[in-house]
Amino acid sequence: MRALILAAGEGSRMRPHFSGPKPLIKLLGIPLIERNILSLRQCGIKDFFIVTGCYKKEIQDCLGNGERFNVNITYLDNPDWELGNGVSAYTFNRTYKENEKYIMMMADHIFNPDVFKSFVEQSNNITDEEILLAADKRLEKVWDLDESTKIKSQGDRAIKLGKELTDYDAVDSGLFLCTGALLNALKEAISNKQYGLTDAVNILASKGKVKLCFIEKDWVDVDDLESYVQAEKILLKSLIPAKDGAISKHINRKFSIPITKILSKTSITPNQITFLSFILAIISAFIFAFGNPIIAGLLAQLCSIMDGVDGEIARLKFLKTDYGGLFDAILDRYADFFIVIGMSYSLLMKTDSLPAFIICATVLTGIPMSMLIKEKYHAITGRAFVPEECDGIFRYLPANRDGRLFIIMLGGFLNLIPAALILLAVITHLQALARLVKLRKMI
Amino acid sequence: MRALILAAGEGSRMRPHFSGPKPLIKLLGIPLIERNILSLRQCGIKDFFIVTGCYKKEIQDCLGNGERFNVNITYLDNPDWELGNGVSAYTFNRTYKENEKYIMMMADHIFNPDVFKSFVEQSNNITDEEILLAADKRLEKVWDLDESTKIKSQGDRAIKLGKELTDYDAVDSGLFLCTGALLNALKEAISNKQYGLTDAVNILASKGKVKLCFIEKDWVDVDDLESYVQAEKILLKSLIPAKDGAISKHINRKFSIPITKILSKTSITPNQITFLSFILAIISAFIFAFGNPIIAGLLAQLCSIMDGVDGEIARLKFLKTDYGGLFDAILDRYADFFIVIGMSYSLLMKTDSLPAFIICATVLTGIPMSMLIKEKYHAITGRAFVPEECDGIFRYLPANRDGRLFIIMLGGFLNLIPAALILLAVITHLQALARLVKLRKMI
Repeated sequence: MRALILAAGEGSRMRPHFSGPKPLIKLLGIPLIERNILSLRQCGIKDFFIVTGCYKKEIQDCLGNGERFNVNITYLDNPDWELGNGVSAYTFNRTYKENEKYIMMMADHIFNPDVFKSFVEQSNNITDEEILLAADKRLEKVWDLDESTKIKSQGDRAIKLGKELTDYDAVDSGLFLCTGALLNALKEAISNKQYGLTDAVNILASKGKVKLCFIEKDWVDVDDLESYVQAEKILLKSLIPAKDGAISKHINRKFSIPITKILSKTSITPNQITFLSFILAIISAFIFAFGNPIIAGLLAQLCSIMDGVDGEIARLKFLKTDYGGLFDAILDRYADFFIVIGMSYSLLMKTDSLPAFIICATVLTGIPMSMLIKEKYHAITGRAFVPEECDGIFRYLPANRDGRLFIIMLGGFLNLIPAALILLAVITHLQALARLVKLRKMI
Repeated sequence: MRALILAAGEGSRMRPHFSGPKPLIKLLGIPLIERNILSLRQCGIKDFFIVTGCYKKEIQDCLGNGERFNVNITYLDNPDWELGNGVSAYTFNRTYKENEKYIMMMADHIFNPDVFKSFVEQSNNITDEEILLAADKRLEKVWDLDESTKIKSQGDRAIKLGKELTDYDAVDSGLFLCTGALLNALKEAISNKQYGLTDAVNILASKGKVKLCFIEKDWVDVDDLESYVQAEKILLKSLIPAKDGAISKHINRKFSIPITKILSKTSITPNQITFLSFILAIISAFIFAFGNPIIAGLLAQLCSIMDGVDGEIARLKFLKTDYGGLFDAILDRYADFFIVIGMSYSLLMKTDSLPAFIICATVLTGIPMSMLIKEKYHAITGRAFVPEECDGIFRYLPANRDGRLFIIMLGGFLNLIPAALILLAVITHLQALARLVKLRKMI
């Protein structure tokens, strides 16, 4: 499937706050239009057509032919961009292939990334006479309702659209799955001197040919400073995985998300953050061994927080790689090993060596078990390990990394290192044993 | 696809050595016919037809309706079994469905299990007028050539078959992929009072309709005591994986295969052997800590050998399960941990505690790395980790389990425990580091 992105307008309302064309305004480190290209690329779209008008040269200079993003970009120039966005949308007629379905979106609308995947998958659900429009029925959640194009719907069809509509129940989010029917409607509207995209969509709506796909995730039309801030919020919120450890969810993300917001604006890579988190762990280990356990514990928690940041930056800036996942997983294990060795060393210096030795060995052998069982299960069965299914009641044990580092932090903070180590030893092995017992009946 | 197994004969040549019908003679713990059913089940065949004659009741009593093996078994009685095996093969005509292709084999032929998979996959390579016959061109490797049915071939076609053929270049291994053409030929042969299967196959061969599939792995017609022993050898040899660690290949398998041969005749399960191997490790650990390092080292090596036996028994007796693979992987890690802790404890008692502590911690953290990286790589990329590709020159490091336990054995045997531990520490972490560097460019 090919995609058309409309980027011809002037975006004057952003002028007081940002210089240059609106599609090129950086949001969390990436220009608005580039983010939309990369989001669609994740859905398998490789061929992009960008309609330029007001800022033709600037946009072309910034994005080039798409090689940098591993996609193909073709520019459709629209000298009449001032007439209305219907004229811009109609430029696709120059390249349209018969019976083709294509994605059309605005360069400056920002969506929770989950929206794209499910939307693109709908392409088989419309006929060649229809178009599909992503619409939002959650009116209380729509940003800047006044400025939005409203929709009066009936079932999953739009009856009428318009900015000034008073009787409406949904809002047009500016993301379309189009067919030749739209180009025909645009031609008809333009020949009647109606230059807005909404004019053409209304022609189709009056025939019952505008199908609606109601989205459940947030989006915003980035039009002014407030909506820009809202777009940042939407993207940052989308970084929190649906399934997250308890400590991660309730503590770490509160810190990692603001850190990610700051770091996204720099050129630091996820692997560099992974390495930084590893260095923090080594420092924590040394301070546990030779210095103040409170500082060491806090550093361990910071290491845990930074362990979230690398993944957040990777998802936010489309920098996720297979190697990054592996590098992170292995360095995390080493980080934990160092911290536990540092804690044990401090014990060894203060107490009898044998108990310290035994406790250290038990924790060190327990730490990799969580990941070993999970990954082996995945490799053998071909299915991801789902704690809710495979761990039963033991899924509440804080034996995963966020839980383990929290226990370490508490151990340092409360100066209860032996207790923290014993607790780690017990829960890591208890989790492994519970999994071996539970999985016996499952697989 | 359905399968027909011919088990109607008397098998008189086995009489002096075994009582009961030949198809039910146990070979490495499993009756011959049951092994063939289970081998074909691994290729996805679920519906079996067994032709009985001489030992109708005994075979039915033993195999039942197949529920025990998770397959369906139907019996085709052949009261005229004494006439010849063509009559037995023709009983399938009672159930034959038009245009069907089916597997036909002798109950008492034993193959290297690899033969079945590639043979069954050939079903699309013959037309409805042809049959496919697994033939062996490696005449020097054929067991009891005198008793075999010889084949004169031309390219991949049989021209003539017969026991008494003098001009031949291959041997019939008794495994067929059949079509209705065989049943027609059988009908024709029987009406001419030619009751042998070879008679019907010759009718097709004379028309160029017998395609040959030349097998490269061993097989044997179990007909007397010598061929029974040969069948045991073929199966045991097939248990050695193509890719095996150096220590495993050159040392461990020399012991594990004979142990497997003995244990296969008992009802011990692979998981019980896994657990036994784990217990051996714990005993080794205790002896390292408190007793004689030579005995402890030898026990560690025995643990390594038994680590091969569980898998061999699982493959040999069709007892491989997902859980078994997981259970083995996790218990192996625990076994290694215990042994290293035992070794470190002995160091701790004799020397300064700090170096012992550091060495122990370094080895304990190194041990799981090999598996962690391999499984994480598999989970992330969806491809199995291939040391030849991913390890480069470092694939020669004895950092996998067979190598590690061999170092431990040597450490105990030569009373060089500190050296063994230091070596383990170095090679395990060196392998992990090398993988992180190498994979960075690969994935």
